[in-house]
Amino acid sequence: MSPNSRHTAGAELSRVFEHIDANKDQFVSRLLDYLRHPSISAHNIGMSEVAELLVTMLSRLGLEARTIPTSGYPMVLASWNRAPGAPTVLLYGHYDVQPPDPLEAWISPPFEPTIRDGRIYARGAGDNKGQHFAQILALESHFAVHGRLPCNVLLLLEGEEEIGSPNIAEFVRAHRDLLRADLVITADGPLHESNRPIITYGVRGIVSFELRARAANRDVHSGNFGGVVPNPIWTLVHLLATMKNADGEITIDGFRDDVVAPTERERAATARLPQIAEDVKRALNLATLDNPVDRPPADSLMFYPTLTINGFHGGYAGPGPKTIVPHEAFVKCDARLVERQNPDDILDKIEAHVKKHAPDVEFLRVESTPPSKTPLDAPFSQTVQSAVHAAHGVEPLIYSSLGATLPDYVFTKILGTPSFVVPYANADEANHAPNENIRIDCFLKGVRTGAAVLDALGKSVESSGPIHSDGENGSWLEP
Amino acid sequence: MSPNSRHTAGAELSRVFEHIDANKDQFVSRLLDYLRHPSISAHNIGMSEVAELLVTMLSRLGLEARTIPTSGYPMVLASWNRAPGAPTVLLYGHYDVQPPDPLEAWISPPFEPTIRDGRIYARGAGDNKGQHFAQILALESHFAVHGRLPCNVLLLLEGEEEIGSPNIAEFVRAHRDLLRADLVITADGPLHESNRPIITYGVRGIVSFELRARAANRDVHSGNFGGVVPNPIWTLVHLLATMKNADGEITIDGFRDDVVAPTERERAATARLPQIAEDVKRALNLATLDNPVDRPPADSLMFYPTLTINGFHGGYAGPGPKTIVPHEAFVKCDARLVERQNPDDILDKIEAHVKKHAPDVEFLRVESTPPSKTPLDAPFSQTVQSAVHAAHGVEPLIYSSLGATLPDYVFTKILGTPSFVVPYANADEANHAPNENIRIDCFLKGVRTGAAVLDALGKSVESSGPIHSDGENGSWLEP
Ligand SMILES: [Zn+2]
Ligand SMILES: [Zn+2]
Repeated sequence: MSPNSRHTAGAELSRVFEHIDANKDQFVSRLLDYLRHPSISAHNIGMSEVAELLVTMLSRLGLEARTIPTSGYPMVLASWNRAPGAPTVLLYGHYDVQPPDPLEAWISPPFEPTIRDGRIYARGAGDNKGQHFAQILALESHFAVHGRLPCNVLLLLEGEEEIGSPNIAEFVRAHRDLLRADLVITADGPLHESNRPIITYGVRGIVSFELRARAANRDVHSGNFGGVVPNPIWTLVHLLATMKNADGEITIDGFRDDVVAPTERERAATARLPQIAEDVKRALNLATLDNPVDRPPADSLMFYPTLTINGFHGGYAGPGPKTIVPHEAFVKCDARLVERQNPDDILDKIEAHVKKHAPDVEFLRVESTPPSKTPLDAPFSQTVQSAVHAAHGVEPLIYSSLGATLPDYVFTKILGTPSFVVPYANADEANHAPNENIRIDCFLKGVRTGAAVLDALGKSVESSGPIHSDGENGSWLEP
Repeated sequence: MSPNSRHTAGAELSRVFEHIDANKDQFVSRLLDYLRHPSISAHNIGMSEVAELLVTMLSRLGLEARTIPTSGYPMVLASWNRAPGAPTVLLYGHYDVQPPDPLEAWISPPFEPTIRDGRIYARGAGDNKGQHFAQILALESHFAVHGRLPCNVLLLLEGEEEIGSPNIAEFVRAHRDLLRADLVITADGPLHESNRPIITYGVRGIVSFELRARAANRDVHSGNFGGVVPNPIWTLVHLLATMKNADGEITIDGFRDDVVAPTERERAATARLPQIAEDVKRALNLATLDNPVDRPPADSLMFYPTLTINGFHGGYAGPGPKTIVPHEAFVKCDARLVERQNPDDILDKIEAHVKKHAPDVEFLRVESTPPSKTPLDAPFSQTVQSAVHAAHGVEPLIYSSLGATLPDYVFTKILGTPSFVVPYANADEANHAPNENIRIDCFLKGVRTGAAVLDALGKSVESSGPIHSDGENGSWLEP
């Protein structure tokens, strides 16, 4: 058996693990230092300071590091390229954080990292500073023990992930040569709530849009004008009812045309996952799940598109009655997309549907991100699985897809590189919320996982190859 | 021809008109004095002061006047009963006013009445102080010229009309004997926008209700939970779509069962009204009216029930996208009712429909008022029409019903008395809005109209009779 398939650390990796154990206190204290620096992309706070801080940190490690400007905040790109013949892994993360509001809900201030009960509380602790800092410490630990890395490494840290990654696609298209890699590893998101590790092979895409209906030039009295003056809320209700039916089926013309069914391998992997239906019902105090009720939640989240109304607002909202015919209303929606739905095509179809059923309703495109999927049998899939197994001592859960968005498509669809999401944070990291935190044991397990992946890639006998050669692969490659 | 059918003032009435002309400046100045007293029922400001002020004013005129307590604000009731053999008219109005907010939108303060361009600006100028004060001045003018009134008079001024008349039905049921009359005249609402007088023979009823949907115990991420966690906005959309279709037909089970078609007389009167479709479209900047587009607006407002969504709110309302599955949403609705729809029965039917189609949605009854209708050939109908014609010098428009609500049913359904709404205010009175006003000429025309009605009733040869003897009458009488 190869070292990979034994799922235990070989001698080189064991020494790295020992180094990590011996240095855990200073690792934690250095993460606290890093978290003290705000880098809020939405508010343009501290962005270039943190980008420069990262360049300094990575240069000291021995990587060639620099910032590369974009139309927005700069990318931080670092590389180490002295393992000829070994594969190249691109480690992706993001150095921007969510705004910390509401401040009053934080037990300790968001940029004064505080340890309580084995957790580090700070904005960015889980999303994503604690995770990419663990990746950096994995590199450092290999350097410290072996004076070198087991494989070639590219580290790409984005400054705009929390504002929807508006420039990463253009950046990746413009710098294909700099970003040539055999695989991508993203350390983001949470472990399973049982603390089991997860490897995710794709993410759903998203389009979001707004529907705006207007009728009269002002609200009018429902007694004097009801039934005479059109009501934009009724207009939107009747339009929405044509877009998804009460059974939960999306009925927008053509919406489901390009949906690819999951492969046998994906079905089998998903069937092995812990069932979450009862947990979701208990946690959210739900009597039933959404229609169709007989579909396992994991299937819904990985293999099916959605159409979600995020908000519907029009007319009177105060206490008691108010007898008006409102003059305007709006609806905000998002749709999660699966392979091979193309966001622009989907937005075109939704717009055509709206024009057909409610020609006076305004349709506004808000944002779109394509779905992404790496086949379960893509190159390095087994290597990554074995490394994660070795770091955690337990077999990882295999997610064919994530429900939520990451700009993963830039790697799979633009670069054609297999991409794996390997989260380090605890399930209750409270990302995007007050009291964001990372458990110290999860953080250190993250450093070990990062180290194990590098070690496994150095020993890998798998050969690189584009992910789009596989007939079973549901993805589409950007021309 | 009788004096009534000549539509011109006889000698006695001419002298009253002359008195009104000679006293118009002091009438206006006394209205300004009255309007200086706030009486905001919604905020409990000045209510008993204004009630007492009215009692003093009416006692001085020679009426027996008093306040009668209710569970809310007191009724003011005054009577003059010394015209044996002549009919008794009950004049109804209300002494409470709407709150004046937003104050900053008023050109002159709401309780500092100001004359500009022939209009008196003040809260209550049109709704309703200027109108019932004109009725009082009509009584005063008859007393001044003739030392007596031509018929018996009851004056009932409510203090809770602007908060939905919660106690008037109980009051009327408890004081049937005090309120025995041959007809009711309500001076409220506006003249036609051409300034032509209007007589209205009924009002639609109303029910209002709220639908509340809840799913999870908090908003969740649409990527992690969309399609798994039920979305209360979708629930309400699908429920509402079963309640009214895109053609404008109300499809609640049983909702239209008791709707009575208009009589031939009502159809004919309505067909003679000025067509308002183009005016409404121009005023509100509308390309089309509501479905069904081929129905004349007057028919919709008088003869058809409505189902109006007053407000729909749930989920995210801020700028940009927010990828949530909201956990709660609510809808506020009102339905206008026509004869013989019974509000309690209609609310039962709506509740049953909601329970059938969306059992988890909470249904809240908010308020209800029955419809009311006096047949076009009811006793004193011709007398009132002729008097209004005489006061204005132009034939009144005959409205079979008003779109909006008044507590008219307490007279028709509880007392069985024919009831006529004869408005005095200008069409642009801006009631319930900032810069409420009454045109001075409309106010004085109101005094003349009030005087002419009293005169005509004194000369009337019509005999009193219950309105419910008419087989064509669409109304129902409270048992
Ligand atoms: Zn984030
Ligand atoms: Zn009013």
